[in-house]
Amino acid sequence: MGVQKPMVLVAGAGAGLGQSLLSRFADGGFEPVGLGRSAPDAPVGQFHTVDLSDETSAPDILAKIIAENGPPRVVIHNTAELVIAPFMQTDLDDYRRTWDSMVQSAVLLAQATIQPMIDAGGGSFIVSGATASLRGGAKFSAFASAKFALRGLTQSLAREFQPAGVHVCHAILDGIIDTARARALHSLDPTKMMTPADIAETYWQIAHQPKSTWTHELDLRPASEGF
Amino acid sequence: MGVQKPMVLVAGAGAGLGQSLLSRFADGGFEPVGLGRSAPDAPVGQFHTVDLSDETSAPDILAKIIAENGPPRVVIHNTAELVIAPFMQTDLDDYRRTWDSMVQSAVLLAQATIQPMIDAGGGSFIVSGATASLRGGAKFSAFASAKFALRGLTQSLAREFQPAGVHVCHAILDGIIDTARARALHSLDPTKMMTPADIAETYWQIAHQPKSTWTHELDLRPASEGF
Amino acid sequence: MGVQKPMVLVAGAGAGLGQSLLSRFADGGFEPVGLGRSAPDAPVGQFHTVDLSDETSAPDILAKIIAENGPPRVVIHNTAELVIAPFMQTDLDDYRRTWDSMVQSAVLLAQATIQPMIDAGGGSFIVSGATASLRGGAKFSAFASAKFALRGLTQSLAREFQPAGVHVCHAILDGIIDTARARALHSLDPTKMMTPADIAETYWQIAHQPKSTWTHELDLRPASEGF
Amino acid sequence: MGVQKPMVLVAGAGAGLGQSLLSRFADGGFEPVGLGRSAPDAPVGQFHTVDLSDETSAPDILAKIIAENGPPRVVIHNTAELVIAPFMQTDLDDYRRTWDSMVQSAVLLAQATIQPMIDAGGGSFIVSGATASLRGGAKFSAFASAKFALRGLTQSLAREFQPAGVHVCHAILDGIIDTARARALHSLDPTKMMTPADIAETYWQIAHQPKSTWTHELDLRPASEGF
Repeated sequence: MGVQKPMVLVAGAGAGLGQSLLSRFADGGFEPVGLGRSAPDAPVGQFHTVDLSDETSAPDILAKIIAENGPPRVVIHNTAELVIAPFMQTDLDDYRRTWDSMVQSAVLLAQATIQPMIDAGGGSFIVSGATASLRGGAKFSAFASAKFALRGLTQSLAREFQPAGVHVCHAILDGIIDTARARALHSLDPTKMMTPADIAETYWQIAHQPKSTWTHELDLRPASEGF
Repeated sequence: MGVQKPMVLVAGAGAGLGQSLLSRFADGGFEPVGLGRSAPDAPVGQFHTVDLSDETSAPDILAKIIAENGPPRVVIHNTAELVIAPFMQTDLDDYRRTWDSMVQSAVLLAQATIQPMIDAGGGSFIVSGATASLRGGAKFSAFASAKFALRGLTQSLAREFQPAGVHVCHAILDGIIDTARARALHSLDPTKMMTPADIAETYWQIAHQPKSTWTHELDLRPASEGF
Repeated sequence: MGVQKPMVLVAGAGAGLGQSLLSRFADGGFEPVGLGRSAPDAPVGQFHTVDLSDETSAPDILAKIIAENGPPRVVIHNTAELVIAPFMQTDLDDYRRTWDSMVQSAVLLAQATIQPMIDAGGGSFIVSGATASLRGGAKFSAFASAKFALRGLTQSLAREFQPAGVHVCHAILDGIIDTARARALHSLDPTKMMTPADIAETYWQIAHQPKSTWTHELDLRPASEGF
Repeated sequence: MGVQKPMVLVAGAGAGLGQSLLSRFADGGFEPVGLGRSAPDAPVGQFHTVDLSDETSAPDILAKIIAENGPPRVVIHNTAELVIAPFMQTDLDDYRRTWDSMVQSAVLLAQATIQPMIDAGGGSFIVSGATASLRGGAKFSAFASAKFALRGLTQSLAREFQPAGVHVCHAILDGIIDTARARALHSLDPTKMMTPADIAETYWQIAHQPKSTWTHELDLRPASEGF
């Protein structure tokens, strides 16, 4: 029987960046496992349909994945739920939905995976942030509050699990990711978008940083994006 | 019939800083109205028992207060729900409770008060942050994520309502506030704590900044507090 | 013989904000002492012509002022030297001039005044920052690098002299100050500028914060200024 | 005649990290060119003795290097001049020396190299920051003010030359770099230091980021370093 490949677990893998992340890690010899609310047409590796914010089902599904594949070496939290609306038209459901899908999902993902990673000798937990992680703009009250919360959570995890060998990193994606959906929504020139495979390459690099040099936060944006 | 006093509305007025804020504004000629889950023994001005995170009751109670007192001139969000626990022992209820009591309550408070303030010509909305608004420490995952979220929300409100004349400010309270409860909990020398009346004085100053010079964020800490 | 008034020492008092600061503190019972490279027409209080970045003359002049007036209670560093130019057209003299006038001057001012303040029981040292203290924009390489440097210096002073009772605060002035010179240079509506007297009021408040609640950084901007 | 290798130019290459950077880029097919005030024993590639803060000699030396090697593809500014001293014992020479060696040297380096990089189609300019780039600690007034200044300068360059295809990045090195000198100075366990080769790997990655995903700031610290 052969040696088991290290697993990468990507939450928010229903499309775009999530699939590119799985693909990059598969190329590097990882067992790619995607999680999402709906499966893409031709998923890279395993795909598990799961609402990660659902506390009644997500922990069991994650436990089963780990039982079958072993502990993950790399976990990536990449869910997003964008709401752009004037404050007076942003209702509590908008806040809860953004918070559930980006913060509660990260809590459940971390609680299911970090201890197994520690027990297996360490690993990486990478979280996708956004411009709104650092700046609450007008009409972004729901999205920014959830992305700020996710950054606070990520920092707390980074500091708590640093001594145990788990590298937690917050990547600020400051630009529009070039996906089929983004091309349909935006009139932006695709050469001014972020290429998913390029983002994936950076995540691959972060996941492989030695203990001597861990990055806890970095930004990524197209050369064409003002900042 | 006399001229109605301007109203200050303080959420989180069950004790300590909340009462000192009401007292400072009462001294300055304001009608003090406190909100909280439980009434203090001898409240300054009106006190309304309300769970501000409860969407079924809070909006009605706030609407009634405004109907009776007129629109607030100054609104202060000062609720806190501290959780300090290792991540693995912080459960979803802890995250929800901190988020509800500090973020959802701010959303409901702002949605009930900002439009009336705008219609009345403007006002101030001041939010109490903490050290954990800027830094997610180990064991602070729930508290920091909620305080980060509150800061993101506050920034978004500040930018959205700046043109309409509502001054939204985030005050970072970096220290232990000197209250009866804090003295019981901490062995800290009270001269190294923050005096509630001193914090209240700063909030009073912020609430009275002219449009030429608005502060959107400031920190406050004892001279003895390292930072 | 009467009691000596506490002295406020304002560097960068040749015009505009500097004079308003002196005026506000004079109204509050302080002995106002201005410093600058050229005297205004009708200075508030004493005015000493001095190039604060000149190490051969500034220390002596400051020592003489203190010998005559006693130690300052409040010191304000408010010098500015704006350079806006493409990087390739910004020469070393531009960097040195901005650095000398904003950083070296602050070093010399602090070295002459902080120990006398400590010996007299404490005091406040307030530094005027700008938008460029936090963000290095294109064409602002000289100005931003000097304003960043001044912020780093100010933080270091704040932490070093906090235990000795000297309150060091960095105020970020994010807007155009309404002065005769600004009106001549900018087509901006004066109601969208910062009123010097309003800034002075905030500095007065900072200088009088009790030890229980010191602000180490705050921003000030017109309600009309996007941020 | 063969194709010329792309040049990497490393300022502050007299030892430690500088040499490791040259080595990493040499391994990747670059022509390594080191600059420093004193040559190491067995330099990797070319080494030019130069005081980069000296405006009378540095521009000529840099121009000559470019004339001989072609424009650099990658430029790394890695000079450091550490001063740790109480403020009252930090004299103007300390401020000037730290500023000259870290800020003026970066200005001269950028003014000599950025236009040639633009003319050749772009390149990368990476600057080494430190913990003190973000926080001015007690006794670090000279070092922090210079490192803050360098960060402001770097941001300004990043924004100005982004449209022209030059990627300017600020890397915050938050830890002690494992060098012979550091081992002699610190009693710290070398496994808790940053390995120069590991830092060099990250700089290599930054220098090769595609235009779709540029990092403008990141931190690097040992897993054992609190933050």
